[in-house]
Amino acid sequence: MTEQVRETPTVKTNGTAFRVIGKRVVRPDGVDKVTGRAQYGADVKLPGLLYGKVLRSPHAHARILSIDTSEAEKLPGVKAVITGKDFKPVADRVERSGEGMVNYSYLSKNIMAQDKVLYHGHAVAAVAATDIHIAEEALALIKVEYEVLPPVLNVLDAMRDDAPILHPELRTREAGAVVGDKPTNIASHEQFAFGDVERGFAEADVIVEREFHTSTVHQGYIEPQNATALWNADGFITVWTSTQAAWDEQRELSEILHVPISQIRVIPMEIGGGFGGKLNVYLEPLAAMLSLKAGHRPVKMWMQRDEVLKATGPTSASVIRVKVGARKDGKITAAQAWLAYEAGAFPGSPVTAGMGVIFAPYRLENVLIDGYDVVVNKPATKAYRAPGGTNAAFAGESVMDELAEKLGMDPIEFRRINAAKEGDRRADGPVYGRIGYIETLDAIANHPHYRSPLPKPSAPWCKVGRGVASGFWFNWDGKSSASAVVNPDGTVAYLEGSTDIGGTRASLAMQLAETLGIDYEDVRPMVGDTQTVGYNDATGGSRTTYGSGIAAYHLGKEIIREMKRRAAQLWDVPEDDIEVEGNVYRYAGHSITFKELCAKLEETGGPISVSVSVNTHGAVPGLATHVVDVEVDTETGKVQILRYTAAQDVGRAIHPDYVEGQIHGGVAQGIGWALSEEYVYDEQGHLLNASLLDYRIPTALDLPLIETVLIEVPNPNHPFGVKGVGEVPIVPPAAAIANAIYHAVGVRMNVLPMKPSAVLKALGKI
Amino acid sequence: MTEQVRETPTVKTNGTAFRVIGKRVVRPDGVDKVTGRAQYGADVKLPGLLYGKVLRSPHAHARILSIDTSEAEKLPGVKAVITGKDFKPVADRVERSGEGMVNYSYLSKNIMAQDKVLYHGHAVAAVAATDIHIAEEALALIKVEYEVLPPVLNVLDAMRDDAPILHPELRTREAGAVVGDKPTNIASHEQFAFGDVERGFAEADVIVEREFHTSTVHQGYIEPQNATALWNADGFITVWTSTQAAWDEQRELSEILHVPISQIRVIPMEIGGGFGGKLNVYLEPLAAMLSLKAGHRPVKMWMQRDEVLKATGPTSASVIRVKVGARKDGKITAAQAWLAYEAGAFPGSPVTAGMGVIFAPYRLENVLIDGYDVVVNKPATKAYRAPGGTNAAFAGESVMDELAEKLGMDPIEFRRINAAKEGDRRADGPVYGRIGYIETLDAIANHPHYRSPLPKPSAPWCKVGRGVASGFWFNWDGKSSASAVVNPDGTVAYLEGSTDIGGTRASLAMQLAETLGIDYEDVRPMVGDTQTVGYNDATGGSRTTYGSGIAAYHLGKEIIREMKRRAAQLWDVPEDDIEVEGNVYRYAGHSITFKELCAKLEETGGPISVSVSVNTHGAVPGLATHVVDVEVDTETGKVQILRYTAAQDVGRAIHPDYVEGQIHGGVAQGIGWALSEEYVYDEQGHLLNASLLDYRIPTALDLPLIETVLIEVPNPNHPFGVKGVGEVPIVPPAAAIANAIYHAVGVRMNVLPMKPSAVLKALGKI
Repeated sequence: MTEQVRETPTVKTNGTAFRVIGKRVVRPDGVDKVTGRAQYGADVKLPGLLYGKVLRSPHAHARILSIDTSEAEKLPGVKAVITGKDFKPVADRVERSGEGMVNYSYLSKNIMAQDKVLYHGHAVAAVAATDIHIAEEALALIKVEYEVLPPVLNVLDAMRDDAPILHPELRTREAGAVVGDKPTNIASHEQFAFGDVERGFAEADVIVEREFHTSTVHQGYIEPQNATALWNADGFITVWTSTQAAWDEQRELSEILHVPISQIRVIPMEIGGGFGGKLNVYLEPLAAMLSLKAGHRPVKMWMQRDEVLKATGPTSASVIRVKVGARKDGKITAAQAWLAYEAGAFPGSPVTAGMGVIFAPYRLENVLIDGYDVVVNKPATKAYRAPGGTNAAFAGESVMDELAEKLGMDPIEFRRINAAKEGDRRADGPVYGRIGYIETLDAIANHPHYRSPLPKPSAPWCKVGRGVASGFWFNWDGKSSASAVVNPDGTVAYLEGSTDIGGTRASLAMQLAETLGIDYEDVRPMVGDTQTVGYNDATGGSRTTYGSGIAAYHLGKEIIREMKRRAAQLWDVPEDDIEVEGNVYRYAGHSITFKELCAKLEETGGPISVSVSVNTHGAVPGLATHVVDVEVDTETGKVQILRYTAAQDVGRAIHPDYVEGQIHGGVAQGIGWALSEEYVYDEQGHLLNASLLDYRIPTALDLPLIETVLIEVPNPNHPFGVKGVGEVPIVPPAAAIANAIYHAVGVRMNVLPMKPSAVLKALGKI
Repeated sequence: MTEQVRETPTVKTNGTAFRVIGKRVVRPDGVDKVTGRAQYGADVKLPGLLYGKVLRSPHAHARILSIDTSEAEKLPGVKAVITGKDFKPVADRVERSGEGMVNYSYLSKNIMAQDKVLYHGHAVAAVAATDIHIAEEALALIKVEYEVLPPVLNVLDAMRDDAPILHPELRTREAGAVVGDKPTNIASHEQFAFGDVERGFAEADVIVEREFHTSTVHQGYIEPQNATALWNADGFITVWTSTQAAWDEQRELSEILHVPISQIRVIPMEIGGGFGGKLNVYLEPLAAMLSLKAGHRPVKMWMQRDEVLKATGPTSASVIRVKVGARKDGKITAAQAWLAYEAGAFPGSPVTAGMGVIFAPYRLENVLIDGYDVVVNKPATKAYRAPGGTNAAFAGESVMDELAEKLGMDPIEFRRINAAKEGDRRADGPVYGRIGYIETLDAIANHPHYRSPLPKPSAPWCKVGRGVASGFWFNWDGKSSASAVVNPDGTVAYLEGSTDIGGTRASLAMQLAETLGIDYEDVRPMVGDTQTVGYNDATGGSRTTYGSGIAAYHLGKEIIREMKRRAAQLWDVPEDDIEVEGNVYRYAGHSITFKELCAKLEETGGPISVSVSVNTHGAVPGLATHVVDVEVDTETGKVQILRYTAAQDVGRAIHPDYVEGQIHGGVAQGIGWALSEEYVYDEQGHLLNASLLDYRIPTALDLPLIETVLIEVPNPNHPFGVKGVGEVPIVPPAAAIANAIYHAVGVRMNVLPMKPSAVLKALGKI
């Protein structure tokens, strides 16, 4: 591990003077989280609580012939046993959920198998009992008869005509329309195309064509899935859970349980990480159904780590083929890609996002991208931070690096020549507005890291190298609601509905304080639930500080309007003539501060409470460029990260610590994906490394201090210029590290993770 | 006990057609309350919870010389011990709280004694420990040295010049100004006067002058006071408690603990009765202070029944002198009253309310009323349903009955001659608007109960009699806030802030549903807390269905406005031209229901959430007339209620069941006050009957089925005509029963309770 003094991160602003924004204020939930007071799902305790456990399939692919729960039901202490039969069929309907789509029928079959099990760990039954040990004992008494079927475990095998079929009714769709006429594992084929790639390749002086293979990886959140549910005797269901998306879960529960959403209350507890993996239900409907069957007693369930790895949604393994051509002057003439993503057991991989990400940083005239969503006998994939982006960029940015090398150009210079700018069209259709991509290239090019010589290897058999890669993410906007109460002491109680994962209580309260011209400490944020605050889209898609920030801004404007009315009443003057500057309200000789005016609410009409709902449109993409120095031990194949610097267009860093934190976290996860994380299966489809000892997430010892450069190119569609920042940073690391490995040892890595054995294999040593 | 078929109560409406209002719908919290799911303060459980207990004074009046807590602190398991020294002095400031006023300095000294204890049971120290038994054991280890002082235990003794003085610094005030110059127990003297009573009495043909004595009585709520508090390491305090007034408690905690209100969150749990006794803090500040001293661990406290009776706030014992004169034609010529109310240990009896109630049903030309608020060595009195009204009406209405009798008039006829109407001035100043008092007299006069002969006595030594009395209550309006979220399935999640004691979730949801033209079942009410919903005045003063109902109405209007905007967008027409009729929105050929429009929120701008805060003005008084038949056992003095009918102007019965429930409850409590309830002290001021075995609240066996006549004279200041209904019904019972006893046995009772020994004494038998 290298030691390194952390530089004060550079924040480049456009010079706007803010009162609160840009400060590194204390997070409101900090004390609770460091003292253990914060209430997570595991802390939920209710009178008469039962404990639920799930029986999971030992097979990757099998038909369920019968389930006999009679012995389990007889065990003293067991209060309910459920199987797929307890869940009524769900309409095969697809709806937006978070950034992606959800098919409720698949979702229902994923949380509890019906006629078939489709992956090792697929839920087949569940038990609620008076204690967890009885529940576990009861699982052993459930007899399931399976007809074991051959599994298909990777995307290329699954695409073969003779592959075992997961869903006999599945037909391939293109642009939503069924095009296939026979059973298949290929759920969809999409294509992005413009220009003429054949002509483009013909114009190229250099062409690089490569195939890349990436493994299934998991989000690796620390807190396992959990849910406590009470299906009350009056038909109302309350669910306490760890979720990024209380309202999406409310809808999913409604569909799966056939209960109107207004009879379902989802209370999001504190969350120990999600990264896209907590956008959908797993245990929630099971706990609710057990509660109903147990006679309306509350049921609490949580996953063990092996269940999290086996049976929640990791992201896709993939095979990606890339072909890019360029002229001697560096100009890219054509770019083509073929992406096949594993969806896991049910359709829904993020291949379309990968298709959008793969060449996004570049201005292209001739593009052809094909993408395939393919089911295999692995857990149904779910979103993972910039879903589908890291593997796509690994492929695309490796090829770009190779092209630059073949052209004898500096990789940053090559990218600058081809960099997308305002007005350029992306492969997936939209035209860029003002983006800060070139600024990220310049920032890295001029950074002391990039300008310094490579460090010396630590041993003669070690080699060092430096790699660069860029990354893109779409960012989401969506809907947010919030409400606020103005207190007579000048503080504002602020109720928002976005699960706080990365410090958004602070980043949202800051925006409300800024709007009101008051101190950050005078805004008291709190996260509500589906009953106490208006609709909020998921905390995901890098949308929270953007979209819920816009709600905070409009909430502030509503408060100001009401405060003007009060000042007008106080002075008996027209409210439209009151001027507001910061926290001061003025008219002619009159002047009063926000706090002073709050003290007069009682005499001017009583309390103020406001609420707003916004449907935001105007998130803009984020772009980043990373540079990394690595040392490769050519004896062992081990890759050590020596130094890492990330430059990103963040729009506006509301709370720079948390923006840096997002970058640190994204890079750390990218490094794990690049070097050590993967699902390992045997030939029967059994997951062999379902523990954090064997599924290797990087530890502090594996990571350098990550340097950040925050570039502020404000988003014109946000009052303070905010862009999503959370997902971009996970996109470049795998490519940057692969490029650095090449520059260290001269071999192009075409597989993730680039674990020691893969590096040794690439070096021809094994 | 009599058996009696309950009549279908008569609801006299003005014929308005309502969709929801007036229906007897199911209460939303019903299932939770009958299945035990409802969460009361006793159900609060938190990790690391400590248990707190209070050490209470064994003396009624004593100086605290020293408190030694060292042994208690050493007891293993004890985490904190507090005394008065832990509480900083609080400003001697008086502020509105609920319907009355609160002096924070007195409040602070009441919840924990400083230099003196002023009543038997006054808190002197408190302990928090890892379990309740250790906490109790620790109390026994605290050594308190007292200098015992002579107590003063009734209002007449306390008014004497040579009385022991409770507060050496107290001086008598009149209309807020200090008028006395020496130490006294008379905190205030107020006077209402108009006309010329001397001239009035001179014009009278008959004058009745009487003195009445009433005892201290308690609200007798079933759920004892309780509080759990967490004074967090970040300085924020959360309190879970049983309260009628979360926001008042927030303010009180702020004053007592010297913490800004915005750092205090009060979460009102379900409440097992309050009746005015849960408007102020007792355990809350102690639990918070213990939490702080115990290193930020949560502390839970609850009272035993003896603590509730000894150390919370019963209502005043009183001495009331009444003199009324009338002409032969029945016209009252003058009315005079002198009321002295015991405040208990700190100033603040409801004597002013009693002064307002005593002659309120009558049109008077000459009035003189004097009232005295007097401290004595008993617990500090607090509000109890129509505070000060029952004892005042007992005195006033007994004298009216005697006057009618002396004039040979039917008591209802006598009252009709003198009945107050719109335009008449009340003794306390205001002029009546449209009131339904005469309608209540007519309703009783024409009721089968009043028109039927008296039942036969059950034994030769028993006598039966019938009595009539009227009653008045001011009713309060105050401030309310609420918010709502419109769901895509056409339901509305409705968050209000009024503790639901008497079914107000239903009565408020009904008003919102009525406003929106939708089904009651489509409104899902929930009670918020000081952090999640805007400011709400207490659930008290009969204000909730009125004031929070107005908030519900305006909330509905806000939703309609937003829904019109959505319909306009859908049809691309001007929003001002959309017509709304019931749940249908129309423009030209277009038409859409509320539910259909909800399903289109997604495509018309996203979710709807609204919130409102209202400061209501326009509650109008409630009036009632009751008739009761009693049987007096002249051998034992026992009084049995045979039949009871109450007619009341209720404005509008939103949910008739709950209006009837309020009347049943008020009458039941009035019967207890009339016949059996009283605090019994020894000469040293020790409360001798601090248990529900010895403090006799009526049981079902003591009560008849109570018949009700709801008269709807709508309140013009409420969109649906609501008047407060909860307090009026406790005002007439004691007087009506006293009058019935007179008509049975021929003696005028001048003391409450009219227990067997009191009746025998009046009969000259003991």
